[in-house]
Amino acid sequence: MKILIKNAEIITVNPHDEILTGDVLVEDTSIVAIGRLGDIQADKTIDATGKTLIPGFVQTHLHLCQTLFRGQSDDLELLDWLRKRIWPLEASHDEESIYWSALLGIGELFESGTTSLVDMETVRYTESAFQALAESGIRALSGKVMMDHGAEVPPGLFENTAASLEESVRLLEKWHGHDGGRIQYCFCPRFVVSCTEPLLVGVRDLSKHYDVMVHTHASENRGEIALVESERGMRNVIYLDHIGLANERLILAHSIWLDDQERRILAERNVKVTHCISSNLKLASGIADLPALKKAGVAVGLGTDGAACSNVLDMFQEMRQAALVQKVMHGPTTMPAREALRMATMGGAQVMRLEDKIGSIEVGKRADLVLLDLNQLHSYPSRGVDPVSRVVYSAGKQDVETVLVNGKVVLEDRKLLTIDRKAVLRNSNESIERLLKRSGVNDNR
Amino acid sequence: MKILIKNAEIITVNPHDEILTGDVLVEDTSIVAIGRLGDIQADKTIDATGKTLIPGFVQTHLHLCQTLFRGQSDDLELLDWLRKRIWPLEASHDEESIYWSALLGIGELFESGTTSLVDMETVRYTESAFQALAESGIRALSGKVMMDHGAEVPPGLFENTAASLEESVRLLEKWHGHDGGRIQYCFCPRFVVSCTEPLLVGVRDLSKHYDVMVHTHASENRGEIALVESERGMRNVIYLDHIGLANERLILAHSIWLDDQERRILAERNVKVTHCISSNLKLASGIADLPALKKAGVAVGLGTDGAACSNVLDMFQEMRQAALVQKVMHGPTTMPAREALRMATMGGAQVMRLEDKIGSIEVGKRADLVLLDLNQLHSYPSRGVDPVSRVVYSAGKQDVETVLVNGKVVLEDRKLLTIDRKAVLRNSNESIERLLKRSGVNDNR
Repeated sequence: MKILIKNAEIITVNPHDEILTGDVLVEDTSIVAIGRLGDIQADKTIDATGKTLIPGFVQTHLHLCQTLFRGQSDDLELLDWLRKRIWPLEASHDEESIYWSALLGIGELFESGTTSLVDMETVRYTESAFQALAESGIRALSGKVMMDHGAEVPPGLFENTAASLEESVRLLEKWHGHDGGRIQYCFCPRFVVSCTEPLLVGVRDLSKHYDVMVHTHASENRGEIALVESERGMRNVIYLDHIGLANERLILAHSIWLDDQERRILAERNVKVTHCISSNLKLASGIADLPALKKAGVAVGLGTDGAACSNVLDMFQEMRQAALVQKVMHGPTTMPAREALRMATMGGAQVMRLEDKIGSIEVGKRADLVLLDLNQLHSYPSRGVDPVSRVVYSAGKQDVETVLVNGKVVLEDRKLLTIDRKAVLRNSNESIERLLKRSGVNDNR
Repeated sequence: MKILIKNAEIITVNPHDEILTGDVLVEDTSIVAIGRLGDIQADKTIDATGKTLIPGFVQTHLHLCQTLFRGQSDDLELLDWLRKRIWPLEASHDEESIYWSALLGIGELFESGTTSLVDMETVRYTESAFQALAESGIRALSGKVMMDHGAEVPPGLFENTAASLEESVRLLEKWHGHDGGRIQYCFCPRFVVSCTEPLLVGVRDLSKHYDVMVHTHASENRGEIALVESERGMRNVIYLDHIGLANERLILAHSIWLDDQERRILAERNVKVTHCISSNLKLASGIADLPALKKAGVAVGLGTDGAACSNVLDMFQEMRQAALVQKVMHGPTTMPAREALRMATMGGAQVMRLEDKIGSIEVGKRADLVLLDLNQLHSYPSRGVDPVSRVVYSAGKQDVETVLVNGKVVLEDRKLLTIDRKAVLRNSNESIERLLKRSGVNDNR
């Protein structure tokens, strides 16, 4: 199958940050040619005249299982948010609700230009999420969450250590490498606070054995790092390093409350970090020091986190907001547009250890592409304006026209091709209604 | 002319924050009935079944004359931004570029649900902006900027004190009260730094004489307040009060760097404040302390500021961002969704001294209404979710379907009715190209 995208403004995000006008030829899963390609026979030709082609966004932290919880937990204190809402809701998921929660999220991700994600599911029914990921065509690292520690964890989420590891391995063996590697497994211990050391050590050994990633939360808020320090006798990242988890296969979401020593460890061990600014603002967690992480040499990607905290899974909003907030913290020339776009694409690719395969528009890379129509009042004038500024500071999901993942069109002329949008809307409403009833969380509202 | 909006979910933002399901009847400029109205003869009926009706957003600080400068001044230090870009660009405006800049901005405002604005134009050609405001149908307070002080001001913007006052009065007498009061004049001394005391005192007297508003910037950044203190011998707001400008007719944009005494003065004198979070973040100005302003009892509205600093004039983005940033500063229960929506509607109405006419959906108020289609993946599930959370945290401009201002439909089924969208796109590009050539600002790029 050959797809030819004709005559686009191409923001490559290649090492030279080149912006070209020309064509992109896709064959099967990959980009095989870029430039003025002339007359080429293709199975499908997309006229991109006057439109802008960017690499698909790579989101490196979210919880698809929380998409159904959008709007269920706003304006709450952090502990109320987690213990009174998120955990009881997660504990009430079933096969069917996990499936619709994932599809609702993936549909929204496609509509807003995200082509790859690093997901963390809940304890049970992760099979359903993989089903949705496989069917939809999105590129993903995902895994079941692991929780075998903590008095506050509800019974429906609490696990036996060995069983948690076994179920993870079972899912890994079934799904890791699915569809030519489009789907990969990652171990997801929730955070140190909810994991015993034997569990974390087990994850360390299995992730090495299978060479798969580990995806966890770390140093998101001050209460958490104080608890880790009191229970494990050292700061969070020091502890992760102490038990051998801090290595090139580790992805840490948030990483707000770090000291210089911890940042040095992250850089030396090639640990990856995901910045989730909307979530960090809304839950009042704090603001990560991105210039310090950059200076230390840590790879940083962007994520929206789950819809339960950030409400929308929109990478345009996340990218703009990350840049703006860093400016007020560190000065107006901090994180210029190109750096923000790079973090949202190549940064995420590095976090996923897929920097050779995705994150930029280059020959040999997978065809994960987003075509934007920036001929909009909110993006005009266009003449004499840096196209990257337009993408980062004024474009939005409403400008996403066509999306390819792994060489396959998943959204065309703003219509989802692999997801039944109406079925998702209907089922997500019915599903959350049943789940809320099961959970009883609204009974005292 | 009677317009009936049938069967909407109505978020009233009335004093009881009521949310109803029912109809809204508009007669001429105003809302004449709300509720289950049954069969009513109307000239036009809008079926709003399954849709959400909100009061139009009221933006209380922006510069329509800067819409053409979108993307021309990103990632710069504040003084470079103003002196190397914004002032030379403003000085190169002509009649025609002011007109298209305004229409481009107003079209974008309609598409994103804003129905009222407080505008600040540049020194010259303000006539063209009023022309655009009048034609488009938007509700506005606007005026020419006034600048008669400061060595850094380019010759094209520098004015003689008397001439500045005279031209302001000429525009006021021509435009104030146009179309039954939909258009009003406001005096716009740029900020203390660029105005002599005689100019400010002249503005004080004229605004009292005509009973019109004064719209200025104040306490946006630390350099500015230091300069005011060194030139005028007191802090910014103290100085404004000292010369008698601090009264119920004054609107201050930004108001970030205030002390307790200044906040007390603003509250006592009933001075209005506009919070512009995107602009304040991007230019690294700082973050206003909204809980302190609220506690002091100051009326606060929201604004995007000009596209030259915030890039988009999108009130959904501004409202969400304002709420999120206040949370990280003051805790996650700060500025819940209802408070954010109120600031973006009734807050703005108070700032414009139009709280009896706009800002909520109530019988007797002007029909400034926005109909949203929230049946979108990014806004689902809908069941069991507070509609206000959906509007503030997950909706966006892509959900705006129909907009009325002053009882007149200006956007219907996502199509602008009073503005020729294609002509605006074409002319804004041609216009900025000519303006850049005249200004010479890109010659050394």
